[in-house]
Amino acid sequence: MRNVRILVAYDGSAFYGWQRQDGFETVQEAIEEALLALTGEHITVRGSGRTDTGVHALGQVAHFHIETRLNDNRLWHALNAHLASGATIRRLETCSDEFHSQYDACGKRYVYLVRTHRYPLPFGKSFTHFVRDPLDLVAMREAATALTGTHDFRAFSNSGSPRKTSVRRVNSIRILPRRESLAIVVSGAGFLYRMVRVIAGTLLEVGRGKLTPEEVRQILESKDRNLAGATAPAEGLYLLSVRYREPTFANGPHDPRGIPGVFGN
Amino acid sequence: MRNVRILVAYDGSAFYGWQRQDGFETVQEAIEEALLALTGEHITVRGSGRTDTGVHALGQVAHFHIETRLNDNRLWHALNAHLASGATIRRLETCSDEFHSQYDACGKRYVYLVRTHRYPLPFGKSFTHFVRDPLDLVAMREAATALTGTHDFRAFSNSGSPRKTSVRRVNSIRILPRRESLAIVVSGAGFLYRMVRVIAGTLLEVGRGKLTPEEVRQILESKDRNLAGATAPAEGLYLLSVRYREPTFANGPHDPRGIPGVFGN
Repeated sequence: MRNVRILVAYDGSAFYGWQRQDGFETVQEAIEEALLALTGEHITVRGSGRTDTGVHALGQVAHFHIETRLNDNRLWHALNAHLASGATIRRLETCSDEFHSQYDACGKRYVYLVRTHRYPLPFGKSFTHFVRDPLDLVAMREAATALTGTHDFRAFSNSGSPRKTSVRRVNSIRILPRRESLAIVVSGAGFLYRMVRVIAGTLLEVGRGKLTPEEVRQILESKDRNLAGATAPAEGLYLLSVRYREPTFANGPHDPRGIPGVFGN
Repeated sequence: MRNVRILVAYDGSAFYGWQRQDGFETVQEAIEEALLALTGEHITVRGSGRTDTGVHALGQVAHFHIETRLNDNRLWHALNAHLASGATIRRLETCSDEFHSQYDACGKRYVYLVRTHRYPLPFGKSFTHFVRDPLDLVAMREAATALTGTHDFRAFSNSGSPRKTSVRRVNSIRILPRRESLAIVVSGAGFLYRMVRVIAGTLLEVGRGKLTPEEVRQILESKDRNLAGATAPAEGLYLLSVRYREPTFANGPHDPRGIPGVFGN
């Protein structure tokens, strides 16, 4: 029995989210089914956290304990060969028995992609959220600064599973304009349910002039979810990478430059 | 009646090439049908040249004469609203009556995209040709230099419509490695039938060590199509831009950086 961790990329539109759910195809189930077909072992694959239906991942991390005698390289190729299209195992490595993809995670990075060109190239255009209005990036950056740091983010989370505290640390929010799109890159130690999508939705309202940066500061202090912006649609959100104290995977986690149709544009 | 030119992007996998062909959906027909539905006019749309089934375009240029009273901006939006998915009109402008997208073209730029990562991100991976072997870029660049300049490219063209001469000028061939892919960017005054795909196929054989740069030089001199490499598959080829002596379209033609999943990777 050994402990194996994997770096997984998936097209969120092909799955009902990460976590196993009877009657719905999820990424976790797809990987578990592939491992069963491959080794005959009933294995539980644990991810660093859930992603909702429609949310994409470039660098989700998961781990599982497995008996197989296949070495890492053969297990990697065989697993990809058995896996449903829409998900790809980018890296696979045996790790210490103690490694836990969720409990050991000390940071996550997401990107929210907004397409600002009305008639984009006809490749991968369904992988971004489209905003027709011109966006005020200066105001968006000022509001992003107000949200950076350690705060009670209750106003920026939809009700989900109860948590001990709604205080979270956001390390940085970067607003990166590209020729025909905009990326909002959010890094933090951890996030509340739908928090990144509420942050993105709120920043987009600031960009459109519907909210001011000062109002965003007040909404954060109010702890009232009704005051923040709408939850931005799942299709624009990508889990970019999960950070651990120990180095994971030889080539490091994925960085945002590789996202189709966006960072190039 | 006015003359209108358009900059068109399309996903080659959605069409049987550019040129109208009874019984097959082509890009030309899709645009003509959209114009008919929109204005009631039977219009012939002329492109800068054909593209084969499966070949993509970021910056195909075409023109047509039309009676409609819709101004450029309204015609542009209405045309996109009527157009089949898979094709997008990126720009539209009224031009001089004399402008002809094919006869006035004085240069074209193509990119051939090769995916070198076996398990790429699950976004847009069908838009590149996959090569599993490691590629020797130094040898590929040396062979590319041998093919640059004015030559009789008979050995690098599949038999197609007869031409007066098979002498063509290739201005540059750039080999651009990215993290998980490779782009071969070919610019020239004009190309023979399937010439860019034969050049790409030949350079890939050089990359794999199956041909030497010196042999490529000899193949060019031989004028024998049987000696050059295989025609690389259509799915990796993109018409990037068409050059004219007069400036066309306010923001200029598209450059290769925006191609999904490749130039970012």
